[in-house]
Amino acid sequence: MHALLSVAHILGRLLMVFSIAYVMPIVCALIYRDGTLLTFIVSLLACLLAGGVLTLATQAYQRELKARDGFILVALAWILMSSIATVPLLLHQPMSFTDAFFETMSGLTTTGATVMVGLDTLEPSVNLWRHALNWLGGMGIIVLAVAILPMLGVGGMQLFRAEVPGPIKDAKLTARIADTAAVLWGVYFMMTLACALSLRWTGMGWFDAICHAFAALSLGGFSTRDASVGAFDSPAIEAVLIVFMVLAALNFATHFTVWRERSLRPYWRDAEVRGVLAVLFLSCLGCTVYLWWGGVYDSFWTVLRHVSFNLTSIATDCGFVSTDYALWPIFVPFWMLFLSSITASSGSTGAGIKMIRTLILVRQSGRELTRLLHPNLAAPVTISGIPIPNRVVVAILGFIFLYFMSIVAMTFLLILGGLDFISAFTAVIACINNAGPGLGLVGPATNYGSLSDYEIWVLSFTMLLGRLEVFSLLILFTPQFWRK
Amino acid sequence: MHALLSVAHILGRLLMVFSIAYVMPIVCALIYRDGTLLTFIVSLLACLLAGGVLTLATQAYQRELKARDGFILVALAWILMSSIATVPLLLHQPMSFTDAFFETMSGLTTTGATVMVGLDTLEPSVNLWRHALNWLGGMGIIVLAVAILPMLGVGGMQLFRAEVPGPIKDAKLTARIADTAAVLWGVYFMMTLACALSLRWTGMGWFDAICHAFAALSLGGFSTRDASVGAFDSPAIEAVLIVFMVLAALNFATHFTVWRERSLRPYWRDAEVRGVLAVLFLSCLGCTVYLWWGGVYDSFWTVLRHVSFNLTSIATDCGFVSTDYALWPIFVPFWMLFLSSITASSGSTGAGIKMIRTLILVRQSGRELTRLLHPNLAAPVTISGIPIPNRVVVAILGFIFLYFMSIVAMTFLLILGGLDFISAFTAVIACINNAGPGLGLVGPATNYGSLSDYEIWVLSFTMLLGRLEVFSLLILFTPQFWRK
Ligand SMILES: [K+]
Ligand SMILES: [K+]
Repeated sequence: MHALLSVAHILGRLLMVFSIAYVMPIVCALIYRDGTLLTFIVSLLACLLAGGVLTLATQAYQRELKARDGFILVALAWILMSSIATVPLLLHQPMSFTDAFFETMSGLTTTGATVMVGLDTLEPSVNLWRHALNWLGGMGIIVLAVAILPMLGVGGMQLFRAEVPGPIKDAKLTARIADTAAVLWGVYFMMTLACALSLRWTGMGWFDAICHAFAALSLGGFSTRDASVGAFDSPAIEAVLIVFMVLAALNFATHFTVWRERSLRPYWRDAEVRGVLAVLFLSCLGCTVYLWWGGVYDSFWTVLRHVSFNLTSIATDCGFVSTDYALWPIFVPFWMLFLSSITASSGSTGAGIKMIRTLILVRQSGRELTRLLHPNLAAPVTISGIPIPNRVVVAILGFIFLYFMSIVAMTFLLILGGLDFISAFTAVIACINNAGPGLGLVGPATNYGSLSDYEIWVLSFTMLLGRLEVFSLLILFTPQFWRK
Repeated sequence: MHALLSVAHILGRLLMVFSIAYVMPIVCALIYRDGTLLTFIVSLLACLLAGGVLTLATQAYQRELKARDGFILVALAWILMSSIATVPLLLHQPMSFTDAFFETMSGLTTTGATVMVGLDTLEPSVNLWRHALNWLGGMGIIVLAVAILPMLGVGGMQLFRAEVPGPIKDAKLTARIADTAAVLWGVYFMMTLACALSLRWTGMGWFDAICHAFAALSLGGFSTRDASVGAFDSPAIEAVLIVFMVLAALNFATHFTVWRERSLRPYWRDAEVRGVLAVLFLSCLGCTVYLWWGGVYDSFWTVLRHVSFNLTSIATDCGFVSTDYALWPIFVPFWMLFLSSITASSGSTGAGIKMIRTLILVRQSGRELTRLLHPNLAAPVTISGIPIPNRVVVAILGFIFLYFMSIVAMTFLLILGGLDFISAFTAVIACINNAGPGLGLVGPATNYGSLSDYEIWVLSFTMLLGRLEVFSLLILFTPQFWRK
């Protein structure tokens, strides 16, 4: 109980910091005079008040957290911030708490699945708020991925405990986390700025440029238009977004190293970078040839353009859409969803299995096959020449099993409620990978608005499950977690 | 090359033994005078001749096989016997080699998927041949499961090396395999006899009773009727088949122990038996309540009857059908297919992941979660109090990953050719688990006859992949296997 109160104390502080986020839509409301100023001021105050009360009420329980409390903290942080972030949506839009919570959870987990229609005519400040949630979610994920999950040892990610960028390696743990986060946030901020400028330069207005830059670097994938990036119909904009989506799907620590060393070589040294680029390049090429050969579009270049953008977008877990790819032969959209499970790097804002685990699993499978022939040979799995401890391999295999089982279980929960199989299965994959659009009822030309409340709650849970890498959320549901 | 010729020598002998199988349809043709006598005599001679020539031509290469050759042997044994078994179908039926090979592979892997229609009016001898393939496939699987795969150490099954029934434990390896096989075949034969008599007693004719007993004990699931067991519309027949399908889904070594000890206690001691019964009981109950509550049938007993039979049939990988369950709310048919992956015991004629692996995986997941809380605690996974070596756990996790990836890869191969997702996905699951019917185009009310040649070949491969527990077939496609 004391542990919960200590966690609550930190959550209270987190809410108070989070209230600063409302300054963005407030400034926007002042510029656009879209009638949402009061809404966002009230929301800011509500958030600040809630945070303040929580902090003060639990002042007596302020203490250093144990690792175990970390699991409660991350889960509650996402749930609590998603809840409080619904306030402006509820004040301003005729939507239920269920739908609003889905939208904010989708924003903060950078899933980018939406239940809202009429985005093109939505007040700019409300749209900015959605995109700000994407962007802030991305900041949370960077801390989570680089500092918190490795510390908790989730799903083989202790691998990266040693990989925190150099200069700050020997500091105390909390200080190190803060410094690492600050460095990576710097990278994140600069790349967002570069993306916004590039989008403005290729023809977007300032507002759209900023919103889409938020959604691109966080791999959130919210858009200010119902038709997503397709509404701009611009190959230049799509090209810019492809570049930044790929950058966002790589490890931010690698970006930092590239910047520090003033050399592109760290990209080449990073096995994940090679993996991501190879998977994307070969998939784009293969799918383009397949669709072109199938005569889906007349021009090879049109196929290449649409495949490159949409495939990269789904594979990196961003989720922008430029055309209704659900109309293509189903191999391609399903392949895109498969890639959404495996492509994004560790230490990026993407989700799913992560490229590092994919690489280790592929090599481990090869090793198992070799072992059948030479039972006493036990050469370790290596990545870039570095041997991976057996315990990490087991943790990753365990992760993949629970990840698959989560997809199975969530799909069953949805079809139990009567949803058709394809919508259910692809919605679960899109949500657990924090990618965004699925197929069927939740395809690229539609959104999650037609789902029932039950389905929306199941998928909200699925998004969080994917974001917290399955283990760190499931552990809260085990009896031994709550045992003294 | 010498190794291949040594394997060919054994395959030649195997074919000569296999030619005895044709005696069954020959006797049937003599009794029913259905005009197939010449067909089966020619087939017998062709098989004997092929086997004889192969044996003699490779006489010089006769030698003890290495473990490595075992992988080639089992894969080629299934492929060669499936090929030669097509002869009577090709001589008598207007079907392509592709379709005939699918049918015989489906028989010998005990998948029971069929491409043939008009079974009700098919010559009895041809129908008996199909069912004989199921039954003989079952005999092959018992050797494979109890002796060969554990010897090769496939997917954690070295676990069972120690579990060969008692009295013959210390004999030489080859002698032990032969003795074990003989003992288990005895159990298999007696249970088949009991099943045939029970079916005759509950109202089937002798011919149908024998055919369905072959298909039940092998968990093959071929039927002499297009409508499968539904054609008999008899609760008593269904009850008999439920009992024998469940028995066939348990470890034959456990049956043998029960017989030897004259006590039912070995069933209770076997963790797999408890697992299979619990999964089947809870699933039948849950699905019955769900369908009854959904008003699918008026009477609770009708629901219970149809759910018990069809769910048990698919879950045990048998594949008999008594009603078009694809019309039920999709949760239930998908749950049945899920169970087909996990339910059958090791050492049974079922396929898929197997209950022992399911149990170990569930406990391993619990252990991984515990480890997040207590990183230095490393209590081993136990089954019935016996600790499972870590290496076995890793092998099982590796197996499950390759099994899932095989489902993904085969589904992509099918949708690449244009098949719809639900048909492709469920066909792959039904075939890799050697269960039989899927959903969509290959649902319980239809069969695999509408698929293209390409799809048929992919699924033939999938059936073999499942039967050989993924690893032992995939290893043949690795370069290191063929390296000196
Ligand atoms: K996304
Ligand atoms: K079967």
